[in-house]
Amino acid sequence: MPPSSRRGLLAAAGGLVAAAGVGAAARAEAGPGPPGATEAFWGDHQAGIVTPPQSHCYFAAFDLTTDKRDDVVDLLRAWTDAAARLTAGQTVEPLGNDLDAPGSDSAEALGLPVARLTVTFGFGTGLFIRDGRDRYGLAGSRPEALIDLPRFNGDQMVPEKTGGDLSIQACADDPQVAFHAVRQLARLSYGAADLRWAQTGFSSRPADGSTPRNLMGFKDGTQTPEQVDKAVWVGNDGVGWMRDGSYLVVRRIRMALEHWDRTKVSFQEQTIGRHKYSGAPLGLRNEFEPLGLDRNDADENPIIAENAHVRLGNAAANKSAEILRRGYSYNDGVNFTAERWPPWRQGMEYDAGLLFMCYQADPRTGFVKLFEKMAKFDMLNQFVTHVGGGLFACPGGVREGEFIGQRLFERARH
Amino acid sequence: MPPSSRRGLLAAAGGLVAAAGVGAAARAEAGPGPPGATEAFWGDHQAGIVTPPQSHCYFAAFDLTTDKRDDVVDLLRAWTDAAARLTAGQTVEPLGNDLDAPGSDSAEALGLPVARLTVTFGFGTGLFIRDGRDRYGLAGSRPEALIDLPRFNGDQMVPEKTGGDLSIQACADDPQVAFHAVRQLARLSYGAADLRWAQTGFSSRPADGSTPRNLMGFKDGTQTPEQVDKAVWVGNDGVGWMRDGSYLVVRRIRMALEHWDRTKVSFQEQTIGRHKYSGAPLGLRNEFEPLGLDRNDADENPIIAENAHVRLGNAAANKSAEILRRGYSYNDGVNFTAERWPPWRQGMEYDAGLLFMCYQADPRTGFVKLFEKMAKFDMLNQFVTHVGGGLFACPGGVREGEFIGQRLFERARH
Repeated sequence: MPPSSRRGLLAAAGGLVAAAGVGAAARAEAGPGPPGATEAFWGDHQAGIVTPPQSHCYFAAFDLTTDKRDDVVDLLRAWTDAAARLTAGQTVEPLGNDLDAPGSDSAEALGLPVARLTVTFGFGTGLFIRDGRDRYGLAGSRPEALIDLPRFNGDQMVPEKTGGDLSIQACADDPQVAFHAVRQLARLSYGAADLRWAQTGFSSRPADGSTPRNLMGFKDGTQTPEQVDKAVWVGNDGVGWMRDGSYLVVRRIRMALEHWDRTKVSFQEQTIGRHKYSGAPLGLRNEFEPLGLDRNDADENPIIAENAHVRLGNAAANKSAEILRRGYSYNDGVNFTAERWPPWRQGMEYDAGLLFMCYQADPRTGFVKLFEKMAKFDMLNQFVTHVGGGLFACPGGVREGEFIGQRLFERARH
Repeated sequence: MPPSSRRGLLAAAGGLVAAAGVGAAARAEAGPGPPGATEAFWGDHQAGIVTPPQSHCYFAAFDLTTDKRDDVVDLLRAWTDAAARLTAGQTVEPLGNDLDAPGSDSAEALGLPVARLTVTFGFGTGLFIRDGRDRYGLAGSRPEALIDLPRFNGDQMVPEKTGGDLSIQACADDPQVAFHAVRQLARLSYGAADLRWAQTGFSSRPADGSTPRNLMGFKDGTQTPEQVDKAVWVGNDGVGWMRDGSYLVVRRIRMALEHWDRTKVSFQEQTIGRHKYSGAPLGLRNEFEPLGLDRNDADENPIIAENAHVRLGNAAANKSAEILRRGYSYNDGVNFTAERWPPWRQGMEYDAGLLFMCYQADPRTGFVKLFEKMAKFDMLNQFVTHVGGGLFACPGGVREGEFIGQRLFERARH
C-alpha cells in the first residue's frame, strides 16, 4: 500500500472516531438530521456527471497557492472525506462542542434536505504545469487530452472567470445546499488554494418531465448521446489514472436577451433549427423526431440551414463527436454593456445566460471539434458571447479510503 | 369615472378578446398550461408583502426615461395587466401565431408551475421629483414618508445598485418563473424606463417548517411583528393614495463570509445575541423564548450585550419600531475585495450575503429608526457592508380594471 493511501485509511478511521465521540449535544440542539434523497458518493465514476441533473449548481475554480505536493495530497484527501460526508447530508465535520473555536461547519444547511447533492472534482492544466513550472512533479502525467483550450472565434474570455487549477461542481436541488458544500471545501483549502471564480446556476424543470427551456425560451437538452458511456467515460485508451473519469468543459455564455427578445420568432427558429414552442425540428411536429438534416424546401434549400445551431451541434454532421451536456442558466442581475448590434445601445443589460457544462471522454474529439466550427458559423453567435470557462480532467470515482485522483499521485512519484 | 380608469377598462376588455381570439395553436404546440399554487393578484393589498415567502426572488429597479406623464400611466397599466396574467400562470400576452414578429412572451416559463408568483410594484422618489424636476406633476403628492434615505454609518452604497424610480419585486418558488416575470415587464417598459439594477435572491426553507438560516448559519426570521397589519399597512393617517400600501426598504448587504467563518462560534453568538444551532436567546434553550433583555450574568453584565444584533433590532428596545422582514440570501460568485480586517487580505472573496427587504407603514418609524442605531453600534457591522438598495412606496392593491397606483394619478391632475 502506498504511503498516501495508508494515511488516507488512518484519516478515515480518525474521522469515524470523531463522529462517534463528540458533537452530539450540538447536533441535538440543531434539530433532527436532514431527510431527502441522496446520490452515492463512492463508486467507479464520480457523481454529478451522468446523475440526472439537479435544479441548482454552484461551480467553483481554485488556484493552488502551495508549492508542496503533500499539501495538494492533503487537500484532496480532506476534500474527499468532506464531500463524502456532505453528500450524505452530514456536516463537513461533526459539530463540536467547543464554541471557542470557529465552527467546523458554517451551519446554513442544518435542517435542509440533502437535495441529491453531488460534488464533482476536476483538475486543470495548472495542477500539472503552470507558467512553465512543474510544481508538484506531475507534468509527466498530464493527459494529452487535457489540452490548453484554444481561443475560439468570438471568445471574450474574462481572466477572472476563466481557468483554475482545481474545480468543484456542486449540484443539488437546493441552491443553499450546493453553495454550502463548496464553502466548506473552500475553507479546507485555506493556505493551499484560493477561490479563483465561481458561478451559480439553475435549471427549472417542468413537472411533467418534459425538456426544460433555457433563457432563450427554447427547449434545451432534447438530444443526448446515443451511447452515453462511450461519449462520457475515459476508457482503456486514455491515460491510466483518468480511466472511468471524464473531461469537463465549462463555458460562461452570456446571452444578449434584450437583442433576442426583439428578434422575430421565425428568425429565432431559423437560428436554432427548431420550432420554439414545440421544440420540433423545423418543419416537423414532434420534438423527438430526427432532425432530418437532408430535408430541402421547394427551392432545394435545406430546411435546417447550414449555419443553424442544431445542425452544427449535431453528432451525425460532425463525424459522431458527442458530448453530454449539463447546462444551467445563470442570472447575475444587470451590468453595463455595449451592444454588438445596431443601434449599438450602451446601458445596463442582463448579465444572464448559460452556465454551459459538458462531459466527454476526450475534449479534442468532443467540445473542441464541435465548437471550432460553431464558433465560426453558428447563427446563434450574434446572440451569445463566451466570457469565461475552463477545461478540467475529472478523475474516476473514489472507493472508501481513497482520495480523489489518488492514482495520479501514486503514478507520478517524486 | 376618471379618464384613466375608463381607458383601463377598455384595455382590459381588449385583453379578454385577444385572449379568446388568437394564439390557441401556439399554446397547444407548447403543451398544457402550468399547474401549481397561485397567489391572488387583485385585492386590497399587493401580494408579495405578507404572502408567505417564496423560495426565490428577482428584484429590479427601473429609471424612468420618459418625460411624459401619459407614458408612465400607460406603463403602469400595461404592467398591471401583465402582472395579473403572469401571476395566474399565463403568458404575458396570448402567444400569437404571427411568428414574423418578436414573441409576445419570451417563453422560458412555458410548462413551469406558477410557483406562487407574486409581483409587487413600488415607486421611488424619482417618480415624484428627480434632480429638482417634477417631471410628471406628481411632486405635490409625494408622501412625507417617502424620504430621501439618509446615509447611514458604514454605508458603502454602489450607485449602480442603488435607487430607482420604480421597483418590481417578483417572488416565486422557482427562480426562472420570477425572472421571467420581470423580463416580460421590462420589455413592456422599452422607451419609457430602463432597468437600473437587479438582484436575485433565494431562501431555502427546512421541510419541517422551522425557521430558515441565512448564510451566516443563524436562524433568520424568528421574530415577526406582534401586529403585522399595524406594522405593515398604511392606514388613514398616511397620504390617501398610499392607503393599504406599504413602504419597502431594500438593502444589498454583503457578508464577509470568509471573516465570519474564521470567527469563534461563541463570538458569533455574542454578536447576534442568540445561540447558533438552536436559535435560542443567549443563555436560554428555546428559539421562541422571549429575548429576556434584562437578564444579567453573575457580574451584573447583560447576557445579551448592549451592542448585540438582536437587542438593537428588537422592538421593545426601540419604542416598538417594527418592520416585517422579507429576507433572501444572494450569491453572485466571487469578486475582488480588500478585507476590512487584519491581515487586510486582498483577493477574490464571496459576493454573497443578504438581499434584505422589509415592509413597514412608515420607514421613519420603521427601518430608519431601527437602523440608525444599528449602523453605529451593532457588533455585526464588522461582518457586513451595505452596498446597495433603495426605498419604495408600494401602493395599495388593485381591483380588476384599475392599474397600480391609479389613485395617485387621479389625485394629482395636471
